[in-house]
Amino acid sequence: MKATTLKEIAETLGISITTVSKALKNYADVSPKTKNAVIALAEQLQYTPNSFAVNLRTKESKTIGLIIPEVVHHFFSSVINGIIDQAEKNGYLVIILQSNESIALEKKQVALLINKRVDGILISLSNESNNDLHLKEILQKGIPLVQFDKISKLIHSSKVIIDDQKAAAEAVQHLIDIGCKKIVHIRGPINPQNAIDRFLGYKKTLEKNGILYDPSLVYTCQQVSFEEGFEFAKKITTNHPDVDGVFAITDLVAVGVLAYCNENGVKIPQQIAVIGFSNWFMSQVMTPKLSTIDQPGREMGEVAFNLLLDEINVNKEGGTFEPKTVTLKTNLIARASTRK
Amino acid sequence: MKATTLKEIAETLGISITTVSKALKNYADVSPKTKNAVIALAEQLQYTPNSFAVNLRTKESKTIGLIIPEVVHHFFSSVINGIIDQAEKNGYLVIILQSNESIALEKKQVALLINKRVDGILISLSNESNNDLHLKEILQKGIPLVQFDKISKLIHSSKVIIDDQKAAAEAVQHLIDIGCKKIVHIRGPINPQNAIDRFLGYKKTLEKNGILYDPSLVYTCQQVSFEEGFEFAKKITTNHPDVDGVFAITDLVAVGVLAYCNENGVKIPQQIAVIGFSNWFMSQVMTPKLSTIDQPGREMGEVAFNLLLDEINVNKEGGTFEPKTVTLKTNLIARASTRK
Repeated sequence: MKATTLKEIAETLGISITTVSKALKNYADVSPKTKNAVIALAEQLQYTPNSFAVNLRTKESKTIGLIIPEVVHHFFSSVINGIIDQAEKNGYLVIILQSNESIALEKKQVALLINKRVDGILISLSNESNNDLHLKEILQKGIPLVQFDKISKLIHSSKVIIDDQKAAAEAVQHLIDIGCKKIVHIRGPINPQNAIDRFLGYKKTLEKNGILYDPSLVYTCQQVSFEEGFEFAKKITTNHPDVDGVFAITDLVAVGVLAYCNENGVKIPQQIAVIGFSNWFMSQVMTPKLSTIDQPGREMGEVAFNLLLDEINVNKEGGTFEPKTVTLKTNLIARASTRK
Repeated sequence: MKATTLKEIAETLGISITTVSKALKNYADVSPKTKNAVIALAEQLQYTPNSFAVNLRTKESKTIGLIIPEVVHHFFSSVINGIIDQAEKNGYLVIILQSNESIALEKKQVALLINKRVDGILISLSNESNNDLHLKEILQKGIPLVQFDKISKLIHSSKVIIDDQKAAAEAVQHLIDIGCKKIVHIRGPINPQNAIDRFLGYKKTLEKNGILYDPSLVYTCQQVSFEEGFEFAKKITTNHPDVDGVFAITDLVAVGVLAYCNENGVKIPQQIAVIGFSNWFMSQVMTPKLSTIDQPGREMGEVAFNLLLDEINVNKEGGTFEPKTVTLKTNLIARASTRK
C-alpha cells in the first residue's frame, strides 16, 4: 500500500519530520509560512494521518468486535444491522466474526479481538458454549463487554435480552386459548439459555392450565433448521396423530413444519395449529401465514451498541461502570396458522 | 482498558524494556535465564503484544474492509458469510460497513477505511452510485480492491460477477418456452449495472423470439422490495389483464407478486407464471414454490476474498498485480410457479 507519509512531505519541503507533524497539528512554534506550505502539499498528496499511530497515542482503536453465531439468519442479520448503523453514527467501526455455533471458534475469535485491542466486544454465544472462561478473560482485561440474545447468566457484563420464558408462555397460552389440547414443543439445543427458557415457558404453561407435561411430546433440534422442522413434523404426525398444536423454537423450524404439512395434506390450522418464534420476514408470506412472537432484532443491536459505548465512555473518564441488563419487549403476532 | 505492557514486565524484573522485547522475540543476545523469567512473567500477566505497534512495524493491519448495500438481505448475507469464513481461515479480520444503498454514505465509508489503513477493500456498489471518484481514490492510494455483484465497469480492479444478461435471458426464454406470450419485467433501479443487464437480457430475448418489446410492460422498482412486488402485481393485473408471465429482478419482489396473486385469486402459474432471481431461501417454501435463477452468494464472497488476498500478497512481494474478472455460473431452477 503506497500512502503519503510525513517523511515524504518533509523531504519534499526540505524540513524535519517533526516540523511537518507540528505544522499539521497547528503548533505555535511553526511559522505560518511553513504551516501553509505543509498543509498545501499534504492536501495535494492526499495525506491521511496513519490511524495506527493515532491509535498508539490515544489508546483507542475506535473499533469494536462482534461475535455472532450465524450471519445468514434473519434475526441475527437484523441485530447486525442495528449494531453497525449505531456504530457508524458514533464513529466506530465493527469487526464481525462468525462462530458458526462452535465454542472452539468462538474462543479463538475472542483472543483475536483482545489481541487487536478493540475498544469493546459484543457477543451472542454459540449453541455449543458451555463454559465462559473466554468471557472471564475479556472482563479481566478490563475490556467493555455486552452479551445479547444467547448469554451466560453468570458473567457480570451488560446484557440485552428478551424474557424468553414469558414470551414462550404467551405462545403456548395462545395455542391453549384457541382450543389445543395436545401440544408439541420443538425445542432448541441443550446449552443455550434461551432454548432452556423457552422450554420452561412451555412446560409451566401446560401445568398452569392443568395439562399433563409429556416428555415424549418434546423434540430437540441440533441445527435449529428448516429440515429438522420438516422431519419432526413427519414424526409427530406419524407417532402422535392426535397432536393439535406445535410451538417451535424459531420460525425457520416452524416453516419446516408448515412445508411438511402442506405437502402431505395435513390441514393447518384445522388439524394442527402452529406457532413459531422471532417473526422472520418469511413468516408473513407463508401459506398459511405463520403466527409467531415478534423479537426486536434491530432494536437489540442498537441497545447493545449503546450499552457498550456507555461503558467505553465511563472507562475513558476513569469512572466505574455498573453493568446493566435491558429486557426488550416481545409481542404475540397471531396469524392464519393459529386461526381456528 | 488495562493491558499488561512491556514496561510493566521490565519494571517488575528490574531490566530494560529493550531486553524484555528482545527476550520475547528470542534474540540471541539475551541470556536464557532472563528469557525464561520474562516469558514466565508475560504468561502469568497474560501479556499480549500490542497489535497497533505490530502494525506500525509490519505496515499490515491484517484487516480488510467490506462495504455492502444491505445486511438483512439473503443474497448479501450469503456473500458476507463466504467472505468472513475465508478471511478467518487466512488470519484476516473483516470490518463491515453498510451503505444502505446511499452513495453519500458509501463515499464516507471508503474514506473511513482508507484512513483505517485496511489491507484491502471489498465493495458492492449502492443503487445510488453513479460516479466512481471514491473507487479511483482507492486505486490511486494503491489499496487492493475487489468489486462484486454491483460493480462499476470503468474501474480497473478485480471483479466477481455473474453474467446477468445471459441469466436473465435464460429466465425469460423459460417463460416463453412454457407458452407465455405477454411477459412483464419488474426491473431494478436505473443505475446498477446488474439491473441494466437483466433488463437487456429480457428485451433481447423477447426480440430474439419475435415478441414486440413494449415499454409499458416494464415496471421499475426503487427499493427492490416485497411491497413493490405486491403493488406492481395489482397494477399489472388491473392494467394488463392478459399478461401471462412475470420476470422479477429478484426473488423478494417475485414473492410480493405471489402474495398479491394468492390473496386475490389470481392463479399461479395457470394465469400468470412467475420467475424471480437469486434463489433466496424463502423461494423454496412459498406456495407455489418460486422458479428462479440460482446465484452463488457464498461462492462469490469466497472468490472475492481470495482475489483480494492474491493482490495483497503480490503487492507485498513488490510485484504488479493484474486485476482479474471472475464470472460465476448461474442456474435456472424451475419450480411450481412456472410449471404449466
